Amino acid sequence: VKTFSELFEQVKGKKRCLAVAHPYGKEAVIALEEARRKGLARSILVGDRGKIIFSLEEAGAEKSEYEIVHAPGESEGALKSASLVASGEADALMKGKLSTAVFLKAALDEEHGLRSGSLLSHIVLMEAKRIGRLIMITDSGMVLAPNLQDKVMIINNAVEYASRLGWDNPRIAAVAHVETVNPKTQATLDAALLSGMSRRGQIKGCVIDGPLGLDNALSPEAAAIKGLDSFVAGHADVLLVPDVLSGNLMAKAMMYTADCAFGGLVVGGKAPIIMLSRADDAATKLNSIVMGLL
Amino acid sequence: VKTFSELFEQVKGKKRCLAVAHPYGKEAVIALEEARRKGLARSILVGDRGKIIFSLEEAGAEKSEYEIVHAPGESEGALKSASLVASGEADALMKGKLSTAVFLKAALDEEHGLRSGSLLSHIVLMEAKRIGRLIMITDSGMVLAPNLQDKVMIINNAVEYASRLGWDNPRIAAVAHVETVNPKTQATLDAALLSGMSRRGQIKGCVIDGPLGLDNALSPEAAAIKGLDSFVAGHADVLLVPDVLSGNLMAKAMMYTADCAFGGLVVGGKAPIIMLSRADDAATKLNSIVMGLL
Repeated sequence: VKTFSELFEQVKGKKRCLAVAHPYGKEAVIALEEARRKGLARSILVGDRGKIIFSLEEAGAEKSEYEIVHAPGESEGALKSASLVASGEADALMKGKLSTAVFLKAALDEEHGLRSGSLLSHIVLMEAKRIGRLIMITDSGMVLAPNLQDKVMIINNAVEYASRLGWDNPRIAAVAHVETVNPKTQATLDAALLSGMSRRGQIKGCVIDGPLGLDNALSPEAAAIKGLDSFVAGHADVLLVPDVLSGNLMAKAMMYTADCAFGGLVVGGKAPIIMLSRADDAATKLNSIVMGLL
Repeated sequence: VKTFSELFEQVKGKKRCLAVAHPYGKEAVIALEEARRKGLARSILVGDRGKIIFSLEEAGAEKSEYEIVHAPGESEGALKSASLVASGEADALMKGKLSTAVFLKAALDEEHGLRSGSLLSHIVLMEAKRIGRLIMITDSGMVLAPNLQDKVMIINNAVEYASRLGWDNPRIAAVAHVETVNPKTQATLDAALLSGMSRRGQIKGCVIDGPLGLDNALSPEAAAIKGLDSFVAGHADVLLVPDVLSGNLMAKAMMYTADCAFGGLVVGGKAPIIMLSRADDAATKLNSIVMGLL
């Protein structure tokens, strides 16, 4: 899968199902209705039945096509929707209008939730016209300041999702502001260490190189100018960012200046978790939903 | 000045002069020759006369148009070129092929250099087609991990350069990964403090707001969705980044994915300092030179 349109094709006709916690408001439901109309997924809506019906009507959605589970309490609805995914009745969990903390607590509930051995982390799929193929960015949204061990889990989560995309042995660039190891900058140390762990087979299913600058991660010409002899440099499939601060600024720079399409997803649980942002446009919301349905 | 072409118009015909330390190699001289042919500046070339003449020949430059100052030692050539700018014989200092540390030491030399009361900092001018006007990014290249006081100096340097661009009272967004103050993230604290200092008139000639996400700094729609009532949000002229790590990844994300033109400059000295990168293409090199000649 190298483009969002290929991703949509993969998901179509698979009869996927979303469990959505507290889907209130027109905007939230419009995205679900669009997914349904495009044959991507049906949704089980969990929360206050009255509010849900009102939202479906506001959005002009085909009410009879939705299953509603009445669970009006904030935590109650979140737990119920998580358990629908944990039990296999739905394929992905989606956050509606409720507090992120309550939602994630339910998603990670030991008994009913999607907790796995790993850490939850965030991935962005970015299709920029100038790059011409999907690249993955992680983690620019979830683990604020990951340490080395966290970064290993973030990479493992990324590799697992990459395999769903059919990316065999993905090339992972641990990016920083320079491609040299600088003892004063932890990001460059972690990047070099991850690269070393990759060479020793301690991180499997991928090839990691770092530190790499973003230029020499993405551009074969920039890599050649710097004389980098690397399987990853210039051809990165995955950009591992140092932390959320730098990763968020990097990803948003692409989102707001490039001709591009993108979506985001929380991975690392037993099933994907979709958390849309109010600021996302309709295309981004749908891309994110489809990422969760793969 | 809202575009690079306006910037070129401003500089043309002003008979500016560059002093270049150790301009060896075809690539370096080609940029100088292009600046000369376009009527932007003449150059005084400082370094080993034989190497300089060889480089001029390699680049097919008009040798008779260049003044050569023979100063073959690395430090000697750097100091001599800095002193040409300090004395007013040249308007901007440019680094050729020598160690950055030696070059900057000479540039900051107490007696012969360009040291002022401020800190040297780096600015990028970015003209992305989707933004439609120049924005300034600082500091994504010089002060690795600035503290609050450093950030005040970085802002003062930016405001000084903005005034050369004719940007009256520029809007400065102190960006982070969120637009809220998070006690765990120093970048958001500094941003809020700079914003407070701006409101109290402690930082003059500009309006600062922060923390702002990159989305709500650049996009009025994103700012409106988040309900930000701010003179800066959605209309930032200057993006103050938290540190070089995050700023470099942000700036390179634009450079390598957006349809854009850009250049960089070191400011904060008595005169501008131009430091090109090997990875810069010809247009970027020329943009950077012109930034130094304004």
